[in-house]
Amino acid sequence: MNMTPTELPGLLEALRGFAAGTLDRDDYLRACAARADECEPWLKAFVTRVPAADLKAATQGPLAGIPVGVKDIIATAGLRTTNGSAMFADHVPMEDAAVVSAIKRLGGTVFGKTVTTEFAFRHPGATVNPWNPAHTPGGSSSGSAAAVAAGIVPLALGTQTMGSVVRPAAYCGVVGFKASFGAVPREGVHPLSGSLDHVGFMARCVDDIAYALACLGDPGYTLADGTDLAAFRLDPQGGLDPLPAPALAVVCAPGWDKVDAQQKALLEQVAATLRRAGASVEEVVLPEIGAPTLWPLQQILGFEALDIYGDLVARYPDRASARLKGLVDTSRDIARADYVRARRTQRELRAALSTRLSGYDAVLTVPASGEAPLGLDDTGDASWCAPWTFLGFPALSVPAGRSARGLPLGVQLVGTFGRDIATLRVAKWVESVLGQTA
Amino acid sequence: MNMTPTELPGLLEALRGFAAGTLDRDDYLRACAARADECEPWLKAFVTRVPAADLKAATQGPLAGIPVGVKDIIATAGLRTTNGSAMFADHVPMEDAAVVSAIKRLGGTVFGKTVTTEFAFRHPGATVNPWNPAHTPGGSSSGSAAAVAAGIVPLALGTQTMGSVVRPAAYCGVVGFKASFGAVPREGVHPLSGSLDHVGFMARCVDDIAYALACLGDPGYTLADGTDLAAFRLDPQGGLDPLPAPALAVVCAPGWDKVDAQQKALLEQVAATLRRAGASVEEVVLPEIGAPTLWPLQQILGFEALDIYGDLVARYPDRASARLKGLVDTSRDIARADYVRARRTQRELRAALSTRLSGYDAVLTVPASGEAPLGLDDTGDASWCAPWTFLGFPALSVPAGRSARGLPLGVQLVGTFGRDIATLRVAKWVESVLGQTA
Repeated sequence: MNMTPTELPGLLEALRGFAAGTLDRDDYLRACAARADECEPWLKAFVTRVPAADLKAATQGPLAGIPVGVKDIIATAGLRTTNGSAMFADHVPMEDAAVVSAIKRLGGTVFGKTVTTEFAFRHPGATVNPWNPAHTPGGSSSGSAAAVAAGIVPLALGTQTMGSVVRPAAYCGVVGFKASFGAVPREGVHPLSGSLDHVGFMARCVDDIAYALACLGDPGYTLADGTDLAAFRLDPQGGLDPLPAPALAVVCAPGWDKVDAQQKALLEQVAATLRRAGASVEEVVLPEIGAPTLWPLQQILGFEALDIYGDLVARYPDRASARLKGLVDTSRDIARADYVRARRTQRELRAALSTRLSGYDAVLTVPASGEAPLGLDDTGDASWCAPWTFLGFPALSVPAGRSARGLPLGVQLVGTFGRDIATLRVAKWVESVLGQTA
Repeated sequence: MNMTPTELPGLLEALRGFAAGTLDRDDYLRACAARADECEPWLKAFVTRVPAADLKAATQGPLAGIPVGVKDIIATAGLRTTNGSAMFADHVPMEDAAVVSAIKRLGGTVFGKTVTTEFAFRHPGATVNPWNPAHTPGGSSSGSAAAVAAGIVPLALGTQTMGSVVRPAAYCGVVGFKASFGAVPREGVHPLSGSLDHVGFMARCVDDIAYALACLGDPGYTLADGTDLAAFRLDPQGGLDPLPAPALAVVCAPGWDKVDAQQKALLEQVAATLRRAGASVEEVVLPEIGAPTLWPLQQILGFEALDIYGDLVARYPDRASARLKGLVDTSRDIARADYVRARRTQRELRAALSTRLSGYDAVLTVPASGEAPLGLDDTGDASWCAPWTFLGFPALSVPAGRSARGLPLGVQLVGTFGRDIATLRVAKWVESVLGQTA
């Protein structure tokens, strides 16, 4: 293992230190930069770093003193934003994405741009897994997961169209969360598929994620209980209230035969632990989580991506990967009627499965088939995240153990549409129970 | 009057000519370019034109041979897109906006970029009113309205955040339509206010607008009757079915005292004409259409625009107008809680007024206070459009007469949320009745 343990505090921990006067904001930024200097030669989590001398902490605001890694498909004014593509190698946006603008307004500091796969699709970047550099960190939010795992930044932005936040978070052993579809503003995020793209967060613990959502979510977003996201506040001194002894639905699909034995065993062990701690844990068969969600997802993604990338690939064929060209080529056959039907399926299943699961506080399932695969050519399989992304449900990976090779393994918790806060409260409880038993 | 009548056919008329072999697509493009050469020295509808030699008609597709004017806040790959701002004077996007990508995919031709006010807010561009160059064309979609009115292009794209499609269409004597919020994709359109921005269309008649919606709307958008927008097809040979003898609600608000006598008289005359033709026309008092919609609209617009423009104005103060600076400055006082409350009001009134108006086929009202105001420093008052934009209702201006100075006057038709097709069918009937009596 190439990663040395870090003593740098996480998000809320740092805010508490600032408030108590035991941690200086500029010192913290400098320490994060030093940590990056130490790791980056081999980790390669960042494609562009703000020079340490330019990292200045604000003195006020809910994110003052907090350095944030920003996935490189998210526009940053005056700071190169490559979209993970040779086509945009020298692209410097005039304006910040909405979520970056919010970070700055709240006093946060853009620390650097984290490596993404090409346009957040499949062609990988240079980042390695911080736990073993021969393994992928996952993708497409590769650098964000790795940077948080290595303790360089306490918070990083990712995006998820299939499994690009939850999967790399699981592979790298951090908490990775994507909120309900529409809950976090996307203006200025380079699109892959407008009906599927979500902005997500990576951090070290559920509290830090909840705080990021409270800060960076759309305050006017209406949750399932009819409240505005603005009504959700989180005191850094306290943290999120856990939801104890939740009712959990274990969902073993899709492609359960492809999930490896260690990951399956971990899920069973976690389920048993949570049951002992008071949760009701029940296996629920959801035939929809499989082909009925994965197939229309592919049609939506292909149809929408063709519209975005067809022209770029035609104009810059020497700067497009084979995978991107493949996406464009195979998507030409998707009929408009099939695309529209897939969008309808998405809406209908979003409502139907929210009803079907209304008796549970969250779904408990796997975030991936197992540990981060060996090799850097492929960022892993998104099949265990993609159905939930298709539905627009809030989902997160929580670290839950290690594989035989010492790589992180996680469990995935999923809530129904618009139940973001409740889902995070379940996750907080799960995290604390697993922490006690580790 | 400086405008000479044009004999160039409109959108569906041209498509019929192509189909019948009586009109050649490339000839049509050349004729449009010649018309632009003739008008542009004084009209100034375009900030950037594609050279006539580069205008090539596709041979296939629902828009093959149709030149489209694209408002200059809508990104066009490889074609300068200034956003109406000195900050973006040399900005050449890498990618097309989604709606431009759709135009090209369907065989349409981007004819040029039409003048917009600065970032679609209030600082005017160079365009004059085609009916009298001493008068404003309206804004912010100034060039699009003028270019269609002058017969340069049969279709132009605009955007509306308050009244930026319907008002200039009324001032210039064309049909200007914005669909329900969310019905036309906005990716690649420079935002002014994400909760209010709509893409709209300008054309010469309701049929042409309906065809544009069928081509360029989001096919997966769900209308109020539960159908997908994709299910709406329009045969260019036939055109839209009018909805005869509709039930119309006349709404005389807000600021009725500021509406000039000619515009009021026209509305009354149109109401009487439509009643004679079989419509039921009834005055409906909607106290919500006034301060309860205009005030939260201002809060949403200000709060969201500050996030987008605060940083730009700070970095490029010498390239921002006084109006944009004023928007940023006055918006700093808008509390987040007030913004969130305004968003809630928007959602609640959208539902409440859709119910309140469910007994009517459309609202009949004014699109503006009267004829296009004298002078080019101000693009006119959006108060008569803004409440409907706030609600996200489909709305259009239909030419209905002339002022004493010979300037166009229109009426505005508005449908409830998601009743886009029904609203256009009412408008088709209104247009035909007014045409018969003109």
